[in-house]
Amino acid sequence: MNGIDVLVSEVGPRDGLQSISAIMPLEAKKAWIAAEAAAGVREIEVGSFVPAKILPQLADTAEVVAFAKTIPGLTVAVLVPNLRGAEAAILSGADKITLPLSVSETHSLKNLRRTHVQVLEDVKQIAALIRAQPEASRPKFEGSLSTVFGCTLEGMIPDAQIARLAEQLMAAGCDEVGLSDTTGYANPAQVRHIIRLVRGVVGKHAVTGIHLHNTRGLGLANAVVALEEGLDTLDSSLGGLGGCPFAPGASGNIVTEDLVFMLEAMGLRTGIDLDKLVKVREIVAAAVPNEQLYGFVPDAGLPLGFEPATRRA
Amino acid sequence: MNGIDVLVSEVGPRDGLQSISAIMPLEAKKAWIAAEAAAGVREIEVGSFVPAKILPQLADTAEVVAFAKTIPGLTVAVLVPNLRGAEAAILSGADKITLPLSVSETHSLKNLRRTHVQVLEDVKQIAALIRAQPEASRPKFEGSLSTVFGCTLEGMIPDAQIARLAEQLMAAGCDEVGLSDTTGYANPAQVRHIIRLVRGVVGKHAVTGIHLHNTRGLGLANAVVALEEGLDTLDSSLGGLGGCPFAPGASGNIVTEDLVFMLEAMGLRTGIDLDKLVKVREIVAAAVPNEQLYGFVPDAGLPLGFEPATRRA
Repeated sequence: MNGIDVLVSEVGPRDGLQSISAIMPLEAKKAWIAAEAAAGVREIEVGSFVPAKILPQLADTAEVVAFAKTIPGLTVAVLVPNLRGAEAAILSGADKITLPLSVSETHSLKNLRRTHVQVLEDVKQIAALIRAQPEASRPKFEGSLSTVFGCTLEGMIPDAQIARLAEQLMAAGCDEVGLSDTTGYANPAQVRHIIRLVRGVVGKHAVTGIHLHNTRGLGLANAVVALEEGLDTLDSSLGGLGGCPFAPGASGNIVTEDLVFMLEAMGLRTGIDLDKLVKVREIVAAAVPNEQLYGFVPDAGLPLGFEPATRRA
Repeated sequence: MNGIDVLVSEVGPRDGLQSISAIMPLEAKKAWIAAEAAAGVREIEVGSFVPAKILPQLADTAEVVAFAKTIPGLTVAVLVPNLRGAEAAILSGADKITLPLSVSETHSLKNLRRTHVQVLEDVKQIAALIRAQPEASRPKFEGSLSTVFGCTLEGMIPDAQIARLAEQLMAAGCDEVGLSDTTGYANPAQVRHIIRLVRGVVGKHAVTGIHLHNTRGLGLANAVVALEEGLDTLDSSLGGLGGCPFAPGASGNIVTEDLVFMLEAMGLRTGIDLDKLVKVREIVAAAVPNEQLYGFVPDAGLPLGFEPATRRA
């Protein structure tokens, strides 16, 4: 990647905000996104094209995308639950569209109100729609295997089912398959296993990113193993805001500040200025004052003599 | 190891209690240690032989050791700062004696009030004293390289200095060299580097354990790398109680509950019953009610269908 070793993809404005009841004003979202981009964050999932009555917190996603698109060098990502969402996403000009396919069909029915067959049918139609766009404005299309590390409703999902769905996502026209620990169930051995399983089916280059939660404190341990396996894109949320409102007990993305500290300390360049990043918390805290922000590094500070990889480069 | 893959060494009664101002009553310490042993914990660092005026919290260490020694199968470990402490430790009948040597001489002077030369002289005399004991009652003697991942006063310590001190500890008569992230500075890449560095000097079998803090949220990520490198003994503290009172800002061992969950989920047997372990928090919380207990797993609960490695075996 261009001057960096790991792409930290900020998902707070989507995953974070969808999980809290407070609605962040549009201006605060813009300030948050602008400040994170200014700190060096290169990809931000800024919202989700879902009906406003389901997630009023993200009702202004089109406006947020329009603003984020004015920031040079920023990849503007959005989540979509279905074809209708994807149409809105394409219209908005988003650079990357992620559609979650829950490998647990029970969770899929609860979260997207769709069977696997229905979701895959949508994927096909979305892929066709994207192919119909002029090449220069064609968004990247990721199918994300959610609950791939286990489901609060079904427990562990069999390998064969995961492998089949990964294959079907690619066959339906996705550019990439993402791995998502929706429920915070993942452990490092399993992360290694699932990455190898899915890559074994769809190929190494079709699996580059992972979405981890820190529900049981294992988020960064899981991230280390994902890096060892060669993944180079890690989702995280500023202040650990977020989670999945449809998976009970599954709250809390890994914290962007702690993740960036870990990566930079390990000698992996993120392109992100940690001091500037930590300051972005003030914007979020002021906009949703009743929400707890997580993170160890903001409290503990940096080690004496700490030299981030990005600054060394 | 006998029926387990990883030895979780509980250090809460020592590292945890020394870092808080409250003094836990002797009876509560006994209840804590007995309950953790009953949950399957096989090694507990129960105290430190330091002058009561420095650490009144640990003034009853001899009584605690005497009690812990009555628990079948439990390895009773203690910390000692110097020869006088080691004499008391040997007299108490402790199974394992750890003496910290801070690789940062500034920290060594502040923490133990000793230069490197003085500490190494003590190590020699302690080793001689241990060799003079009847073989059946000879404690294991570990020299622990503290601040080995960096010091709040000196920053990073040069590799050559770390290697020299590790060599000198073994030459002075230690059975093993431990690695201690006293300041919570460690990152996974550095953990790998330091393990290889020290093992390269003193041999693989002389480095089996690591003492990690979670000050910056990287504790379990560091633990994963230590396991990958083949270490099989991990220190942790129930509820994350603890830290180093002489290293400002450096608080919080890794949480035993979260560590055991991670290991068991990864298929590594600890011999510990997680449900029983989590219940031990009630004893600690009741005995030091003003102290915060940390840990994700106690709040989040176990994944649906979770099957610990120890129970599978």
